Amino acid sequence: MEEKVIKLRQAVEEASPLIHNITNVVVTNFTANGLYAIGASPVMANAREEVGEMASISQGLVLNIGTLNETQVESMYLAGKSANENNVPVVLDPVGAGATTYRTETARNLLNEINVTLIRGNAGEISNLINEKVDMKGVDSKQELTDAVVVAGKAAREFGTFVALTGKTDVVTDGERTYYIKNGSPRLTKVTGTGCLLSSVTSAFLAVGEDDPLEAVASAIAYYGIAAEVAAEKARDFGIGHFQPFFFNELETLDHEEIKQRLSCREEEI
Amino acid sequence: MEEKVIKLRQAVEEASPLIHNITNVVVTNFTANGLYAIGASPVMANAREEVGEMASISQGLVLNIGTLNETQVESMYLAGKSANENNVPVVLDPVGAGATTYRTETARNLLNEINVTLIRGNAGEISNLINEKVDMKGVDSKQELTDAVVVAGKAAREFGTFVALTGKTDVVTDGERTYYIKNGSPRLTKVTGTGCLLSSVTSAFLAVGEDDPLEAVASAIAYYGIAAEVAAEKARDFGIGHFQPFFFNELETLDHEEIKQRLSCREEEI
Amino acid sequence: MEEKVIKLRQAVEEASPLIHNITNVVVTNFTANGLYAIGASPVMANAREEVGEMASISQGLVLNIGTLNETQVESMYLAGKSANENNVPVVLDPVGAGATTYRTETARNLLNEINVTLIRGNAGEISNLINEKVDMKGVDSKQELTDAVVVAGKAAREFGTFVALTGKTDVVTDGERTYYIKNGSPRLTKVTGTGCLLSSVTSAFLAVGEDDPLEAVASAIAYYGIAAEVAAEKARDFGIGHFQPFFFNELETLDHEEIKQRLSCREEEI
Repeated sequence: MEEKVIKLRQAVEEASPLIHNITNVVVTNFTANGLYAIGASPVMANAREEVGEMASISQGLVLNIGTLNETQVESMYLAGKSANENNVPVVLDPVGAGATTYRTETARNLLNEINVTLIRGNAGEISNLINEKVDMKGVDSKQELTDAVVVAGKAAREFGTFVALTGKTDVVTDGERTYYIKNGSPRLTKVTGTGCLLSSVTSAFLAVGEDDPLEAVASAIAYYGIAAEVAAEKARDFGIGHFQPFFFNELETLDHEEIKQRLSCREEEI
Repeated sequence: MEEKVIKLRQAVEEASPLIHNITNVVVTNFTANGLYAIGASPVMANAREEVGEMASISQGLVLNIGTLNETQVESMYLAGKSANENNVPVVLDPVGAGATTYRTETARNLLNEINVTLIRGNAGEISNLINEKVDMKGVDSKQELTDAVVVAGKAAREFGTFVALTGKTDVVTDGERTYYIKNGSPRLTKVTGTGCLLSSVTSAFLAVGEDDPLEAVASAIAYYGIAAEVAAEKARDFGIGHFQPFFFNELETLDHEEIKQRLSCREEEI
Repeated sequence: MEEKVIKLRQAVEEASPLIHNITNVVVTNFTANGLYAIGASPVMANAREEVGEMASISQGLVLNIGTLNETQVESMYLAGKSANENNVPVVLDPVGAGATTYRTETARNLLNEINVTLIRGNAGEISNLINEKVDMKGVDSKQELTDAVVVAGKAAREFGTFVALTGKTDVVTDGERTYYIKNGSPRLTKVTGTGCLLSSVTSAFLAVGEDDPLEAVASAIAYYGIAAEVAAEKARDFGIGHFQPFFFNELETLDHEEIKQRLSCREEEI
């Protein structure tokens, strides 16, 4: 797995896939800079007049409902259908699903209308998509991890997608194979957009990982988590303001030795 | 007062109030990260389909007209009315009131239609709200401070709100009691969104300071100013690019001793 | 030329021109902070209800189509016409022209309807505006530089504007006089919005460089490139995450000696 993470990371740098993000206004800059840091090419385009064309020339499409509105949702449908027609993988980040009816329903409708490759969200968001009432504030206890696996698997089978349910332990599944990843840093939870950027980074790994896309998703999440761990160590004498630049440094130039030593990822079949 | 500032700061961390921001596109990321730094939970939601629901589950609502448009203003009314119905305190940041007719009128209309708890702005913005023609580029001379107090008091009485008029000396008043705060750093004026973030930080302090909300506003402003002072000192060997990460560090972990030693806040009755 | 760069830089600080940006949602914060760093006053306003009024009180207007949509384009026309009526210089940044039909056509229509002072873009964007099919991924070979000069000159004459075609070598021309600038750092290509901010910085220099506006454009680009060079050196022990704060530091306080020693700019007549 270490070698796969390294190989995919290098493939992103070499191929520089164009990742089209229709995302929320909070994280646009952070997302674009994070994609540049790993060598991908970000593009943001929201207008219905161009999203279909932009998605068709992209290698990945990310739909993020963090600050959704009527116009943007219309553009998401147009971009999603164009991506489907052109075999461009689609990542859905259902930010805040469950917080309002509008978010929950929009996320579900997108899943019904568009062929989504991956849903990337936290336990609360994923469980709300499938209408499960699980009380999870993060995946930290044994019971919570069990619940997370059940929820992720159920969502994967119900929607016919991969699911990456991220928390203290990240669960990546297609409903049959499951990866458990334990890399990351609590500091990620104190910076806005770290989940959103992870969705976009995963899209970049998917763009170059066609031979085993589920493994590509797990590799992206592991890479991201290890980058955060190393950044947190290097920024340990500073507060949260300095974590961000150190994190981008690691996204850009994470040492392969760190990947080999820190990777905590195991795979299981149901 | 020192103890109150410390107590409210800790209460924000413990309660982690959900602060709903309908704000301008320039400062969304900065605002969210600043709220995370003090331990609050930021949410940005703009769509008319969900703002009422989101405001109703929040502990604070911030309306910021920095890049207002027709759709966003409609959402501000919906969110504001929902906040009023659910006893969620509303902070209005009238960014640029006076610069264009549209801004001035929108700010006044919002004040007429919504029960606002606090207006947070600079001298130019507040004076334009009440149609006073005072030439103030910051509150630095004795005359300017006198004018600021008159303007802030008049606005507080006219709109029935608290007013925080920030500048070299910050004036916080309900029209009768007035706090004068002299913490802060000139570097705040060289980073975009520092006023906007202050409005949101104040909203977080209001959410946990119900027993004396005017004091909570003054406490938020003092905390913010002291964090900026300490950050400016720690970043003194660097330019403006480094002030921002140091400032977020201090918002997160400002030493209580610094608060005790630096607090410059006095209260007066009219 | 060194003295001119220094003089204009100081003039920006002293006059603090108000630069009205109608720009994409990715770079709003970065642009505002970059303008503050050089001492200019940024304002972002998008609503049709106010853009005309805002442009009329500004000293520069920047139209950036990076995340254009129907409403924003309408505002660009209103602001542009107001700027023209009030003799406010207009800078157009045709982000992504050529990537989609909507972008290419919108950029051309803006050029037809509004009196634009300067177009600032890369080789691909500028060549698409004039429908030239030149394969340019940056201006790095001798042939590419020759092509760039031809494209920039043709665009300048066709649209009756100044053109700043930026790449490894930056070409600034009015179709007759041409400046070649070789300052900059590859790190600029790894941070989102560095081209967009350059357009806005150029607008600030134009606001104070009326006696020779073409030279003002060249001076802005040289200043920006030198700031990036120095920042890249100071941040050389760090990754891309640290380049950004160091770059803002230099935009704010770039040493005049650095300008004198590093400036690489020559002027030619056709």
